[in-house]
Amino acid sequence: MELWFTEKYGDKVGFSLKVKETLFAGESPYQTVHVLDTHMFGKVLTLDGLFMTTDRDEFIYHEMITHPVMYLHDNPQDILVIGGGDGGTVREILKHSCVNKVVLCEIDDMVIEVSKKFLPEIAVELINKNPKLEVFVGDGIKYVEDSKGIFDILIVDSTDPIGPAVGLFSVEFYQNCKRALKNDGIFVAQSESPFYDINIIKSIKLNLHDAGFKFVRFYYSYIPTYPSACWSWVMASDKYDPINDFPEVKEFNIRTKYFYPELGRASFVLPLFFKKEIED
Amino acid sequence: MELWFTEKYGDKVGFSLKVKETLFAGESPYQTVHVLDTHMFGKVLTLDGLFMTTDRDEFIYHEMITHPVMYLHDNPQDILVIGGGDGGTVREILKHSCVNKVVLCEIDDMVIEVSKKFLPEIAVELINKNPKLEVFVGDGIKYVEDSKGIFDILIVDSTDPIGPAVGLFSVEFYQNCKRALKNDGIFVAQSESPFYDINIIKSIKLNLHDAGFKFVRFYYSYIPTYPSACWSWVMASDKYDPINDFPEVKEFNIRTKYFYPELGRASFVLPLFFKKEIED
Repeated sequence: MELWFTEKYGDKVGFSLKVKETLFAGESPYQTVHVLDTHMFGKVLTLDGLFMTTDRDEFIYHEMITHPVMYLHDNPQDILVIGGGDGGTVREILKHSCVNKVVLCEIDDMVIEVSKKFLPEIAVELINKNPKLEVFVGDGIKYVEDSKGIFDILIVDSTDPIGPAVGLFSVEFYQNCKRALKNDGIFVAQSESPFYDINIIKSIKLNLHDAGFKFVRFYYSYIPTYPSACWSWVMASDKYDPINDFPEVKEFNIRTKYFYPELGRASFVLPLFFKKEIED
Repeated sequence: MELWFTEKYGDKVGFSLKVKETLFAGESPYQTVHVLDTHMFGKVLTLDGLFMTTDRDEFIYHEMITHPVMYLHDNPQDILVIGGGDGGTVREILKHSCVNKVVLCEIDDMVIEVSKKFLPEIAVELINKNPKLEVFVGDGIKYVEDSKGIFDILIVDSTDPIGPAVGLFSVEFYQNCKRALKNDGIFVAQSESPFYDINIIKSIKLNLHDAGFKFVRFYYSYIPTYPSACWSWVMASDKYDPINDFPEVKEFNIRTKYFYPELGRASFVLPLFFKKEIED
């Protein structure tokens, strides 16, 4: 028997992987959770039937949500990650020796537990209980509301703006993120596909400006298992404009497979159809 | 009834589009040719069951195979395109007023004819019989062999290195391309997916160096309908090194949707896993 998993986009486009076996299928209070073992992409985590991460291409997403902002900030010590229960984002953050503390705030304990069990290379710092890492299972919206001026960097590593993550795209949430950051702090979030979701991207930009951030900039790379494979992130700050402030010369000694400083800078040079839609 | 077309990669990954109807199905002496009308990507041309071009994302491929080299070269007047029978590449070249003559050498007349009939926005210059365009239906390998020192730019817009295109990836062909170019000429070819086909890319690099080209550089962008959606092209020349010679200030007045000079420069800043594999 051939087993295939297909993620559909708008019921009109499909991306499919041939599956060796289903390793986990569960229903949490928030979403359905699957782990599949696939032929080409290794272990795959899906939430509500959508690709979240895979052994083979996770390095791209996790490096690109992390290292550009870590490289841009002068001295990132205290970091908050909302979502990201698979552990890939905190794994990359903890490669930076300047880090003092990382808080991971994930609403769904099942994501954390299945990642530790089935995706050990991604969840390595969760498994190892890195002493710089504090894991908080709970509502990121509430956590951010209760934090004032304490983080250098706040990363929203969320699912799409449907289901449990919808509140993570609102002006009110962004305002609270701004208050949770120090004055020179930087906000980063995954911001969907410029090829399919340009209207979501435009509303993220508006909402971040409405929340009072001075600089709001998008960057992109490609993730083979995400819709259209072109993916974007947004960076917002009152101090740093990544387009002008990305350091020309600064040490970067971390072992990566995708990111290096010059690539980080180039990732802000957006395809014209994307750039035009979000220009001030 | 739901009709879907799926392209598989290695029988283990699939990319599928929901189809409204099949507009054309034919068998040429070289390959099977289909034109499908799809819900999300408009008209789609496939050869031997593989995506060649679609209404929705063709601009990325055709702009990126054309404008970086046209921008890099000081005065590109005489251009040869091998393959590219859909007409998208010559359409982009002919936007440059400096062009004196473009020869399109396509082996398969069926590709030209179905593109003119079903993909008129892509094949527009073929339909309009642009007086600067000369269409030659025949073997590109032979055409290149018979040309000596007459082209400023030679673009290989081919299918994958299987089937009719296999000879377009050999040292001997590359040597003949070099001889067909003027001394300051530039060679460009599509060069497959760095995510899946890094060994093909490495052999393209070796073969181009073996053919005597001084500078061999790869660049990339993303094409949603191609395998892994990350796609690369190679540029080879004795005069131009795109990494150092890409003009900082030069007019570019052509209407595009993807390319602009800064993006062209950034497209040579390769993801680390790709860069490492092809470094000298």
